[in-house]
Parts: sequence; structure tokens; C-alpha cells
Amino acid sequence: MVARCPTLDEVFHPRGVAVVGVSQTGRGFAMGVLSSLITAGFSAIYPINPRYTEVMGLPCYPSLRAVPGPVDHVVVSIPAESVLSLLDDCAAKGVRSVHFFTAGFSESGLPERADMEQEMLRKARAGGFRILGPNCIGLFVPGSKLVNSAAVPIEPGPVAFISQSGGHASNLPVYGSPRGLRFSKVVSYGNGLDIDESELLEYFAQDPETEVIAAYIEGVRNGPRFIKSLRLAASRKPVVVYKGGTTDAGKRAAHGHTASLTTSIVAFEALCHQMNVIRVADIDEMVDAIVALRFARPAPQGAATVVMGAGGGPSVLASDELEKAGLQVPPLSKQVQTDLLRSLPLAGSILVNPIDAGNLASPDAIGATLQVVSRVPGVDMLLYHLGFHPISSWGGGRFASPAFLEPTTQVMNEVAAASGKPVLVVLRPPLDVDNMKDFVAAQAGFVKAGLPVFYSLAQAGRAMARVIAWQKRRTP
Amino acid sequence: MVARCPTLDEVFHPRGVAVVGVSQTGRGFAMGVLSSLITAGFSAIYPINPRYTEVMGLPCYPSLRAVPGPVDHVVVSIPAESVLSLLDDCAAKGVRSVHFFTAGFSESGLPERADMEQEMLRKARAGGFRILGPNCIGLFVPGSKLVNSAAVPIEPGPVAFISQSGGHASNLPVYGSPRGLRFSKVVSYGNGLDIDESELLEYFAQDPETEVIAAYIEGVRNGPRFIKSLRLAASRKPVVVYKGGTTDAGKRAAHGHTASLTTSIVAFEALCHQMNVIRVADIDEMVDAIVALRFARPAPQGAATVVMGAGGGPSVLASDELEKAGLQVPPLSKQVQTDLLRSLPLAGSILVNPIDAGNLASPDAIGATLQVVSRVPGVDMLLYHLGFHPISSWGGGRFASPAFLEPTTQVMNEVAAASGKPVLVVLRPPLDVDNMKDFVAAQAGFVKAGLPVFYSLAQAGRAMARVIAWQKRRTP
Repeated sequence: MVARCPTLDEVFHPRGVAVVGVSQTGRGFAMGVLSSLITAGFSAIYPINPRYTEVMGLPCYPSLRAVPGPVDHVVVSIPAESVLSLLDDCAAKGVRSVHFFTAGFSESGLPERADMEQEMLRKARAGGFRILGPNCIGLFVPGSKLVNSAAVPIEPGPVAFISQSGGHASNLPVYGSPRGLRFSKVVSYGNGLDIDESELLEYFAQDPETEVIAAYIEGVRNGPRFIKSLRLAASRKPVVVYKGGTTDAGKRAAHGHTASLTTSIVAFEALCHQMNVIRVADIDEMVDAIVALRFARPAPQGAATVVMGAGGGPSVLASDELEKAGLQVPPLSKQVQTDLLRSLPLAGSILVNPIDAGNLASPDAIGATLQVVSRVPGVDMLLYHLGFHPISSWGGGRFASPAFLEPTTQVMNEVAAASGKPVLVVLRPPLDVDNMKDFVAAQAGFVKAGLPVFYSLAQAGRAMARVIAWQKRRTP
Repeated sequence: MVARCPTLDEVFHPRGVAVVGVSQTGRGFAMGVLSSLITAGFSAIYPINPRYTEVMGLPCYPSLRAVPGPVDHVVVSIPAESVLSLLDDCAAKGVRSVHFFTAGFSESGLPERADMEQEMLRKARAGGFRILGPNCIGLFVPGSKLVNSAAVPIEPGPVAFISQSGGHASNLPVYGSPRGLRFSKVVSYGNGLDIDESELLEYFAQDPETEVIAAYIEGVRNGPRFIKSLRLAASRKPVVVYKGGTTDAGKRAAHGHTASLTTSIVAFEALCHQMNVIRVADIDEMVDAIVALRFARPAPQGAATVVMGAGGGPSVLASDELEKAGLQVPPLSKQVQTDLLRSLPLAGSILVNPIDAGNLASPDAIGATLQVVSRVPGVDMLLYHLGFHPISSWGGGRFASPAFLEPTTQVMNEVAAASGKPVLVVLRPPLDVDNMKDFVAAQAGFVKAGLPVFYSLAQAGRAMARVIAWQKRRTP
């Protein structure tokens, strides 16, 4: 008899969660998950360790079998040597899924450990449960309060992320949440012994909670199935892929990391192009691309950008960076420049595009400038930059104050809605504590207003160029 | 009779400084310079404004001619319309140099303003004084206490920076100082009406206080002289150049910014290659290149790098980023990997290079790993990365504590000295206030120990690749 294989939807919505490998030191992966589940308010949590009767205020059970209620999901952080007998308990308890933090299997390069991994898979198939990992950080499903980190808001959102790397699986939400990204499910799947990238892509292609799919992939085991899954996902939703292991050294690292046989990067690039998958080069670019997809609204019709902000050097840089990234920074006519002089000073200003003027730091001047340039035919996007001069930009709380942020973001949204051209914001992060306070507040103000925030001109340019190219190639 | 033309050395060492255009609002360029000069302890400062008798506690004079003592340098922030008559006063007073914040001359595109600029130059030649700018932020000469900003340490150092952009002239010291860079002279020269990039390069080629020359250049007016000056400078010292205005839009912006006729970027690249000038693409890369030149000690003999730090995803990224930047990340032999296992765990580790292990966050594990890999033949550099996982990396002050920083930096310096291979440090800056506190402290610890700190793997890779290429092409 073949046991029934639980669906991913069942895996993502467990009734009870057991955490195996808890301690009373307060440290380690298991304790991180335990405290995160408690913080998130998950209802049925069962710590497992025969040495304790209570951990973090919860009853602690000697074994999985001793848990009174139903356990659907098991989080495991115990040495590799103890894993097989635990899986027998999982089968007996009738769990749906087991997530292994535990590492040291096929990725170690040791044949006996690769064999053990295969034995784990056989036990899962026979026992009718799924395995996530091993060698991963598991699930972040805010809608189920099933979380592995307390560092990210548990408010759900429309972004799904699958990641072969546990580090990236925690970094993307941490980097993305201050910029407004919220997640439907984040799945770290490590060695991908059972649940793998293909099954996850198929799931997210049809998941009604997911509008954007992001994936960090080091290598795939079943090429044909992966291609089919990626095609399905990309035909339905924007898919952003960061492929790790693109150089020889990267491939070696990927193999040691998650036992991945990385595919030819040339073939992978061709595949992404053919399927209209958005390729990015690192996690920061992934955040940028998703921010562009989600918040650059209305979607730009083309790549012609008017840039504005204080600073001549940054304006020269802006032009170079944006054109190198594939956008255009077209010159403004004499008539438009004359119109701009109604609100901007002549001395010290550049008006041709980029527009650089010392007073482009006041809501009135920003608003007036946006009004003028948003009406210029052929312009597709409006970009405002701030924070390129660390001395004066953030200090004193000027740009962190509601007196700046509220009218500025309001006029940005009004101009975008009236003109059909999105307004992008580039804020350069400072590197000191005082300015960071103001940066965080300013960023929060722009993000709260639903505006796309980027951290550099080059990043904004690359992200928008990718999204514009993706849109042009979409089958309507 | 032709008046004597003061040398740049005289310009950089004034006895008295007058600041024209001061107010009692506390705002504006003139007031920024005035307060910076007072903070720095410059001895003879003369505010000029007929409406006041005292400004910031100093006697204020109605005109330049009314100042009792000698005035060598005049800082000017008044409207363009009032500039010509001020220059008559400068001639009468016998000043050596006049720096104009004032903008709105040739860069405005208005012919009458370009004519006025030429009249300024005639008055300077006849009056025997030099003009810096117009349209610039002037001089930062820590050794003379002649400063234009209070945001940077006035401790002198061996880096000279000339910049056509005032923004960049203030940004480079602000970005560079937390990473250990100190400056001999920073000169913002704006439109370059009189003192220009060629004269400045010639000066710094022979300046005994300067070991590294950095230049932000939008365009040059006298091509043949510029080529001669650049060749002279690059033959004597490392020269790092950031050329602004490399795309069509960038050129337009540069012309509007400093009235520069930007040269062909292809010709410029060829020139830099021929003269062994280090080219960078922005101010951040400029800081990186100077940090690599100054602090990657001993200088690396080649590009083979061993990378270590906690995190599988970052390690895969590291390999890809460094190889893309032109470094090599060669695999370590089985024997070396076995040696590493004496201090690193098997489970969850990658040992092949990059070396990823969870405990590469303790001084002992870092030290033991550095000891092993520094002895591997063919390895040229050792790179330690930290901070790629924002949740755990900086929080709690662990890496900000002397208990981590002191033994870690000590062993890094010991290994570098014993092996002849530099140790590089990559710290990823966080984007929130709490972690920023720890980041700033950790960075300060590494910088205090004289180690080169970079903010990303890609930046470290690009900077080191540039410095290695520069070294190989040096004429001994």
C-alpha cells in the first residue's frame, strides 16, 4: 500500500507543530522557531525533548508519540545521526510534513550521508509525509502564523519566495519588508530531497494568495520538470529568479551548500529569456525587481525618465547610471525649462534633465516640478532622488518629518494618477546612526504612501529596465 | 605690468580668510564655511557684510578693504550680479585667491553670464590673484585648518582629491573617513575658470603630503595640457579617476553642471589605460579603490582569494561576485579541508572555498582558519565577510565588542604580516538604527586596526582587481 502524499497546501496549513531539538539554553535554530511561533500566536505548539517537562512556558514532551493533539508539521534540529528513528515516530504519529534544519547530508560530499538522505526519503514515502530540506530554515507562512523568524512583519502579502539558501530565505523578507514587501509564503527548501523548486513553482502558479513569484535557485535535479514548472509559473505571474552558482567557484560553493548540480548558465539564461522570466544577480536586485513590479504604478509605458533632486554630481551620475541600465534620460525643451524656472532658481540649477536645484527638497518645489514634467509628451517615468549628500540630506530630521513627507508623497501620488506615469523614489542609505534614524523614517513615509523606494540610481534603473522589458514581452 | 600669479601652495596656506556673504540666519554656504573655520580653529577669520558688526561672535566688516589684517583667501557666496565689484576690492586688498560658491555663470547656458565669467578672469589676472570656481565648494586643507565642512575629521592624511562637483567633493571625505581615509587637500573647482584639473594634477604630482591622487572630472578645456598633467601625476603616484558624463544624458548634465565639454569616453578610457590610471564608475568605487591602495597590506601578488564567513548563500554569492570582478576563488585541497575541520564543524559547513561555517563568527575559529589558509601555496589574499544576515549579524553587540574585535583584528594583522597576504574585510551595512550602531562600532574596530573594509563582496572584488592590475603595469 502506498501512503497518501500530503499536498503543499496541507503542508502550509498545519493544525499542530512539534519542534524537536529544543533546549533550555535559549539558543539554536529550534529555539528560534519556538519563540517565533509563540510570538506569532500559533495555537498548537509542542516542544519535544525527553530531558525537559517545560520549555518557554509550554509543556515539553519526551517524544513525538507522546503529544496528545494532532501534529501536522514537525520542525527538526537534531544531529543527523538521530534523524532516521525520528522519522519512524513521524510515520506513527501521522504527520504531514517534516522540516529539517539538520545539515550534513548529501551536501557534505560523504557517500554514507547521501545514502542516509535517500533512506529518509523512502521513510517519508512509506509513512505518507513530506520532507522539507534537509539543510534549510523551513517555512514562513504569515497567514497560518507558521513562522521561523520574529524579525519580519507577519502581515501577509502577495509575494512568494522559494529559496535553496536559508540565509537568502531570511534575508529577502528582512530586506524587503521596510520597502513594503509582504509575503504569502517563503519556503527554504535546502537540499530539495522531496519538496523541490518544481513542485513549489507549480503550487505558486495557482496559489490565489500569490501575485509575484521569486526564486533563489542554485541547481535543479530534474531539468525537464523544472522547465515545465517554470514555464507554467511564468505564463501566469511575474517570476523573478536569482540563479546562484554562475561561475566555476560559485558552482563549487553551491554544490557544497545544497548538493546542487548547477546547470549551464548560458542555457539557463536562454531559458529565462524564452519564458520571459526576470533574471537578477543577487538578493538586493531581487528586492528591487519586486518593488518595481508591485509599486511602480501605473506601470510605465516606456523607459524615458525625468530625474530630479538636489545635487549636480548626483545628477550627472544619475544620467550615466540610468542610461547604462537601459533607461533614457531625454533632454527637456527650452519651453519646459522656462516653465520650470517659475518654481526653481536659475543659479546653481540644471534644468535640462536631470533637473538639479537646491530647493528640490521642499514639497512645493517638488510638486511644481513634477506637475510640469509629468505633462511633457514622451516622458514615461518620474524619478526623485534624495540623500546623496550625507552631510545635509538626512540631518536634522527635515526629510523625516510629516511636514515634508505628507505633502510630498501626496503630490507624488496625485501626479502619478493624473499623468499615468509612475513616480520612483531613490533614497541613498546613510552609514551612521543619526542619519539612519531619519532615513528609516523617510523611507517609511514613502513606503506607506505606496511609492517604490530604491537605494541607488543604478538599482532603480536596472529594476525598471527589467520590468519594462518583461511587460513588453508579456502575452496579453 | 603683469601682476604676479600666486602658486597653489600659497593658495592652500592662507594667513587670513575673509567670508563674503555671511548672514545672521545661520544658513547658507558662507555660514557653513564660517562655522567650520571657527570649529577647526583657523586663526584669522573675517566675516564681511555691511549690515552687521558681529557674526558668530567675530567682528564683521563692511567690506574687504575694511579688514585690518592681511587677507590671502576670500570665500564668496553673493549673487552673481555683485561679483565684479567685489573682485576690484580683492585686487585692492592684495588677496591671493578667491573662491566662489556663487553659481549661474557659463554653466547656465546664458551668453551674458559666460561673458561675465571671462571678465572675472581678466580681473584676476590683472589683480594678481587666483580664482577657484565659480560654482564650487572650495578648499578642504586640514593641515592649514582651512575647511569647508565640519563633518569630516581635520586630521590630515595622504589622499588628495580634486572634484569638478561640489557634492562629490564633500561626499568622498564623508564616505571615506569612517573607512580610515584622511586627506591632504580636497579641492572643488567647479567651472575651472582659472585653477583647473591640469594645474591641480601637476601640483599633487609633486606635493610631498600626497601619496594617492583622486579626481572627479566631467570634462576638460585644454586637452593636451590635461594629458600631460595626467601622465606626470600617474607616473609618480596612483591616480584614481571617476569620469562623469559618460553617456549622452550624462554629458548634457555635466555641461549644465560645470559648463564642461565632455570628451569622448572611448578616448578617455584609452588614455587611462595607456597611463595606468585607475578608472572607477562612481564615488563609492573611488573610496573602495583608495581603501584598497592604502590598507590592503602587504600588497597582493595576485588575484587568488580565499573567502570565509558564515552563510551558504553569501558564500555562493561571494564566489560569483569575486570571479565576475576578475579575482579567482580557487578550490582548496582535501588536505587543507581536513586541516580546517580541526576548528570548523562538518555539518552545515562548506570548506572548499569559500569557507562557510556557522562558527566563523568567533575570534578563535577565524584565527585558526586564517592560519590554515594563509599557508596554502598560490593563495594571494584572504577575505573575511560579516553581516550578510541582518537578523543575527549585528544584533546584540556581539561584533561591536572589544572581546570580538581586538583578538580578531590582531590575528588578522598577524596572519597578514607572517604570510605576506593581505586580509580584507567585507561588512554589509544594515538598514536599521539598532544594527547600525553595531556596524559603526565594528567598522571602527577593523579600521582602527588598519584593515581595508568594504561594504560588499562585489565592491571588494572590483577594487582589488583594479589595484592588482595597476600594480602589474607599474614601471618600477
